[in-house]
Amino acid sequence: MMQLKGHVASVQQRQCVQSAAPLLRSCRVQGVSGRSVAKVAKRTAACIERKLSASINAAATAEKQTAAPAQTANGGGGGGTRVMIIGGDGYCGWATALHLSARGYEVCIVDNLCRRQFDLTLGLDTLTPITSIHDRVRTWGEISGRHIDLQIGDICDWEFLSQAVTSFRPDAMVHFGEQRSAPYSMIDRQRAVFTQHNNVIGNINVMFAIKELVPDCHLVKLGTMGEYGTPNIDIEEGFITINHNGRTDTLPYPKQGNSFYHLSKIHDSHNIHFATKAWKLAATDLNQGVVYGVRTEETVAHPALINRYDYDGVFGTALNRFVVQAAVGHPLTVYGKGGQTRGFLDIRDTVRCIQIAIDNPANKGEFRVFNQFTEQFSVNQLADIVTREGKKLGLTVEVTNVPNPRVEAEEHYYNAKCSKLQDLGLEPHLLQDSMIDSLLEFVVQYKDRCKMELIKPAVDWRKAGVKVNTMGAAVAAK
Amino acid sequence: MMQLKGHVASVQQRQCVQSAAPLLRSCRVQGVSGRSVAKVAKRTAACIERKLSASINAAATAEKQTAAPAQTANGGGGGGTRVMIIGGDGYCGWATALHLSARGYEVCIVDNLCRRQFDLTLGLDTLTPITSIHDRVRTWGEISGRHIDLQIGDICDWEFLSQAVTSFRPDAMVHFGEQRSAPYSMIDRQRAVFTQHNNVIGNINVMFAIKELVPDCHLVKLGTMGEYGTPNIDIEEGFITINHNGRTDTLPYPKQGNSFYHLSKIHDSHNIHFATKAWKLAATDLNQGVVYGVRTEETVAHPALINRYDYDGVFGTALNRFVVQAAVGHPLTVYGKGGQTRGFLDIRDTVRCIQIAIDNPANKGEFRVFNQFTEQFSVNQLADIVTREGKKLGLTVEVTNVPNPRVEAEEHYYNAKCSKLQDLGLEPHLLQDSMIDSLLEFVVQYKDRCKMELIKPAVDWRKAGVKVNTMGAAVAAK
Repeated sequence: MMQLKGHVASVQQRQCVQSAAPLLRSCRVQGVSGRSVAKVAKRTAACIERKLSASINAAATAEKQTAAPAQTANGGGGGGTRVMIIGGDGYCGWATALHLSARGYEVCIVDNLCRRQFDLTLGLDTLTPITSIHDRVRTWGEISGRHIDLQIGDICDWEFLSQAVTSFRPDAMVHFGEQRSAPYSMIDRQRAVFTQHNNVIGNINVMFAIKELVPDCHLVKLGTMGEYGTPNIDIEEGFITINHNGRTDTLPYPKQGNSFYHLSKIHDSHNIHFATKAWKLAATDLNQGVVYGVRTEETVAHPALINRYDYDGVFGTALNRFVVQAAVGHPLTVYGKGGQTRGFLDIRDTVRCIQIAIDNPANKGEFRVFNQFTEQFSVNQLADIVTREGKKLGLTVEVTNVPNPRVEAEEHYYNAKCSKLQDLGLEPHLLQDSMIDSLLEFVVQYKDRCKMELIKPAVDWRKAGVKVNTMGAAVAAK
Repeated sequence: MMQLKGHVASVQQRQCVQSAAPLLRSCRVQGVSGRSVAKVAKRTAACIERKLSASINAAATAEKQTAAPAQTANGGGGGGTRVMIIGGDGYCGWATALHLSARGYEVCIVDNLCRRQFDLTLGLDTLTPITSIHDRVRTWGEISGRHIDLQIGDICDWEFLSQAVTSFRPDAMVHFGEQRSAPYSMIDRQRAVFTQHNNVIGNINVMFAIKELVPDCHLVKLGTMGEYGTPNIDIEEGFITINHNGRTDTLPYPKQGNSFYHLSKIHDSHNIHFATKAWKLAATDLNQGVVYGVRTEETVAHPALINRYDYDGVFGTALNRFVVQAAVGHPLTVYGKGGQTRGFLDIRDTVRCIQIAIDNPANKGEFRVFNQFTEQFSVNQLADIVTREGKKLGLTVEVTNVPNPRVEAEEHYYNAKCSKLQDLGLEPHLLQDSMIDSLLEFVVQYKDRCKMELIKPAVDWRKAGVKVNTMGAAVAAK
């Protein structure tokens, strides 16, 4: 069960410094160049100096909040609310797990680590040197005094999931645990099938787990803004009121997915909507935009807590990829005309949105949809911003238009609503303010880890075939 | 390949009479009562006398059409168009296979026979004594001189599907091959998962097969009117034009599924829509209503060709169940208030709709949706019609309202469009005209095969659990 340690700040500081040493050693073992090691060491020292006070404050706050009664949960403190984070080793999941743990929520991470397996199989790697989930959780426990429960397994395996849920008994399940890359789902038939099977069946199991094992648990499900596609009318939050032939109804907003991944999230949304009606589940579907950034208050508190940062053609989201390209002097690769417009948000807002959803749960029987993004940009606008801000740092940034590997509208109307989370208290980080501090400067530190061959588009929508694409060979040949 | 036999009518007649004998023998072996055997014999003789001329005419027409050029396909004759019917051993699939084969289409049935396995597992049985798919196809070949190719396997198995498609090279794939019962999908978690996996993954494989192996092939996919749910506005055919905040777009009609089965068809529709855009597939989605009846021109041409007729609480559709209840003197079981309104069609219209879709294919890149039903009725209206028509045959018909095992609106607006297929030439059979001849009289013949314990509602939506429901025990205990 939960083992909360009341470490004082000085102890935490000592542990934090000590635990940097294994990281440095592991860098050497993994063949990182001497120059990189020096940089890591310098970075580590700077990081510890700059950020430790923040983490200690967070941990101290958490300790205080743990003692508070559960009903304070709506006030923004965890108050012991039990949160299971499925996919808690992933990009958004890990940041969320720490954010909630630091604020007094009892956190259990469930993950089958398939995201790491994808990197191994495809020859990809995060720009940042992440540690194992076991080291992550252990380090967090040491510096914060907060225990995170860890359950390694696959939610498509009912026997595993039911045991995990029965033993942890969550008040909320945050479901990040899906294959989340559109290009990955378009590599070949096997991966298209894997994506829809993994995501849809895993989510069905989660719904049955709630219904049968923890019926009062609030499902907080990560959807995607990509479920809506690019309609020629305003995008509402989940539902739209339609006047038609003299009658009116408020119906689920029409969905148009542009990859097997996006479609899997559409399927999930329909399944969850049904479960809220048939079984009175309480569910919040968070249609998240494209997430950028890597730093959150907690992940920068110790090198072993660093979050992953993907820039490759399979898992790298547009803005993260552009920033790396700017850092390493590679032209920003705009797909097609660059008029593709999407919603974006800082990962520091992702973690806050999840907390807001948990603190203000849906009612039983309610299927609630929030559009989780803060600003919308076209790809060309992103390229312009990265170019301008890069120049301020002395970077030479060029932009190149490459043939669009995706099938999508490249010039279109886009106006999506995102007021519900802000009505509940979200105060957005704006891209303009985060670009240099949270993105460019951070990424420049790690640019020597960048593998240039991973930057280019890796998957063509039109060429998704039935022959298994081993990928490794293609990457190795560059 | 195709082995077309030029048997003359007299030979076919002899074979037809001869092939009735094994059926009679098999009835005895299977333990049918003497009285039933006598009935079967009488029916067989009458059937042969009444229907043989029709089947011979159909076969002769088919022979003639085979010699005609392929471009006559749009004229209503098959003209050698190669049609793969996935799920060709099922209720709609079998009737369609014969209908098309009789009209000069080259037919290949693909089926994994899971529908028969469901009956075995759950202790269910069709009211009508169907023969094996092998006997069906052989008998059809004998009486019509038309060969139907038979491929037994699972379309979720890519190796099997790709070989079947490569060897047959269809011009059209008619995809009936999905688990098609809403109650079955709600029995327990395993069956919910099976339904969505089987249907969604099988359909993805079909799409990849077309893209990679037969890119000009027209996908004719069976959806369901249940994808739309019961919105408070008119239901259009697949798409709806929405005016919103001063702008307009035509978008996929919003979907609201009321079981894991209905949801699986929603998922399919979204996946197919994407494939038409990304890969330029040509696809027709037939959102079919509730099918009733059992007789088609071809299935009554020989006892061994008889179609299945399900009346049980898992696979029996509302009207088919009511007719059996009327025939055996069981009160018609109206679920809840009985205001549930749906679209219905005669199975003789199902087979014609499929032919129309094949003869008028979608364009490449087009996702075309037809609502495939002819009349809409509430459950109470159906009960009234069966009561009235039953009385004309001297049956005592009572109606009882039972607690609704489903979660659905029991009183609601319902106005669904169904003009597109009629614009292409469908001339509907109307329920009023078919009730006595095609339904009640037919079913009364087989009423001794009815198992009363199968009539009642078998699956409660609210009780779908994670414990595997073995069902057999529940049925045996009645």
